[in-house]
Amino acid sequence: MSSTRPLAGVWTACLTPFAADGAIDHARFAEHCKAMIAEGSGVSLFGTTGEGTAISPEERIAALDRVIEAGVAPERIIPGIGFCDVPTSVRVIEHAVRKRCAAVLILPPFYMKGVSEDGLFRHFAEVIEKSGTAELRVLLYNFPDLTGLVLPPSLLRRLADRYPGTVIGIKDSSADWDLSQRYLAAAGADLSVFLGDERSLLANLRHGGAGTIAGLANVIGPALLRVVADPAKADAVQAQIAEVVSVVTGHPFVAASKSMMAARTGHAGWSNVRAPLDALPAEVGRTLIGKIAAIGL
Amino acid sequence: MSSTRPLAGVWTACLTPFAADGAIDHARFAEHCKAMIAEGSGVSLFGTTGEGTAISPEERIAALDRVIEAGVAPERIIPGIGFCDVPTSVRVIEHAVRKRCAAVLILPPFYMKGVSEDGLFRHFAEVIEKSGTAELRVLLYNFPDLTGLVLPPSLLRRLADRYPGTVIGIKDSSADWDLSQRYLAAAGADLSVFLGDERSLLANLRHGGAGTIAGLANVIGPALLRVVADPAKADAVQAQIAEVVSVVTGHPFVAASKSMMAARTGHAGWSNVRAPLDALPAEVGRTLIGKIAAIGL
Repeated sequence: MSSTRPLAGVWTACLTPFAADGAIDHARFAEHCKAMIAEGSGVSLFGTTGEGTAISPEERIAALDRVIEAGVAPERIIPGIGFCDVPTSVRVIEHAVRKRCAAVLILPPFYMKGVSEDGLFRHFAEVIEKSGTAELRVLLYNFPDLTGLVLPPSLLRRLADRYPGTVIGIKDSSADWDLSQRYLAAAGADLSVFLGDERSLLANLRHGGAGTIAGLANVIGPALLRVVADPAKADAVQAQIAEVVSVVTGHPFVAASKSMMAARTGHAGWSNVRAPLDALPAEVGRTLIGKIAAIGL
Repeated sequence: MSSTRPLAGVWTACLTPFAADGAIDHARFAEHCKAMIAEGSGVSLFGTTGEGTAISPEERIAALDRVIEAGVAPERIIPGIGFCDVPTSVRVIEHAVRKRCAAVLILPPFYMKGVSEDGLFRHFAEVIEKSGTAELRVLLYNFPDLTGLVLPPSLLRRLADRYPGTVIGIKDSSADWDLSQRYLAAAGADLSVFLGDERSLLANLRHGGAGTIAGLANVIGPALLRVVADPAKADAVQAQIAEVVSVVTGHPFVAASKSMMAARTGHAGWSNVRAPLDALPAEVGRTLIGKIAAIGL
């Protein structure tokens, strides 16, 4: 069902590796992107899991260039756009489009609160119109716990109707299945609904959703890919994925995921995070990896 | 009491005038800044009232240059720094310092939630150290309703102790007097505590606070200045100010303030806001101005 969507499948919300001095470790970033793509997923860069808001527009542009130069296929990349102002959003979007990325994932302006649907519509419309390219493909990004805003399902529909072929769907990280179902209803047959909550991947697929853009795919990508490959037979693996979510919950997600990467790769630098996050020791990652293995993933 | 503080008095959290096409109306901006300074306040630019997060770093830099070129004294300007990433913050701070602005007002990184005091400390420390100038003066900016974060009073103290003469105080827009008192206690004798809540200006001054950085100063600056000029005799005017807050509350603050500016100046363009805010009709402003006049301000 999801194969008719503009975009579908599993996209890894990639962790961003940092060197000890805080700079992006470009070589390791490209290596990780390639590993995720070799598994079968695409890569979404500079999202929440990627600590995107701690990465400047110039750094995002440079990092995108570097991973593409290193051989990562742009049609497997969805850069995140997480800026509150229109000009900066447009600048980074234009670069992503020039590089022929699959789409961009755009947060709403997340400082102001209590704003209207019309106000959000005008923001996204301005971003899209000023980007001014027929090649642009946009996924909206809903993450109420971090933005303090819920993107109304009617906003998704209005933007898709106003910009058909440009606004192609949404990533919903609300972990609120009722809301996700409303996005699915608003999406109809022509838009892609990705959920951030790995526990709802199978339910999403069975209700016409496109797949997941998932932070846990950094660690358990193959399991998520098995769900998408054969949803009819995926109940058992989906249950295992839910167990993994339970195991990881209670730790700060980004730092825990990086700690798992450090444990798995043996590269201690994977634990580095940017402020305001705090790094976790590698032993946390080792423990979590052990628990995930015990679950069978 | 407040005169011994690094900074004190009334600073107008300036509205940013936009042309019909959304560009900053530089001439009107400079004119408004000069009017506020002529009244006796300083100007804080690109804060919440100034729709700062909707204004790109490049636009902020250009607008700062333009108001200074137009004759606004930089020692009466506090630019707001509201970026989640360090490199962008540093870029705009360095420009403000080069221009000899009085201080900068820095929001915490407001996307991530549930972050630790240590994480926030490292963020501000990195911003300060990478700005690398002895002339830098920093006010922290606490606005929990919009950032989803409370800056711990102990964070203010730790940063001021680590960077004496650089971290000089805080603007607290929590409208939570208990929290404000904890900032006042943490500030001791050497730091400036400005409140964003105009209703607490007199209480703040009487408890050793420095003054206010106030959105309402765009409209009722002289009343706020009278409180600061003679706190011993300011109970009546403080009560009038509280009435004005009551009158304006219930309208979206930025749009209502701009609508009042449009009504007062006769320039309809003052009503323009950037997305995601919605403009209010000038008649709202006229009604509010009338009510404020009836209060006697």
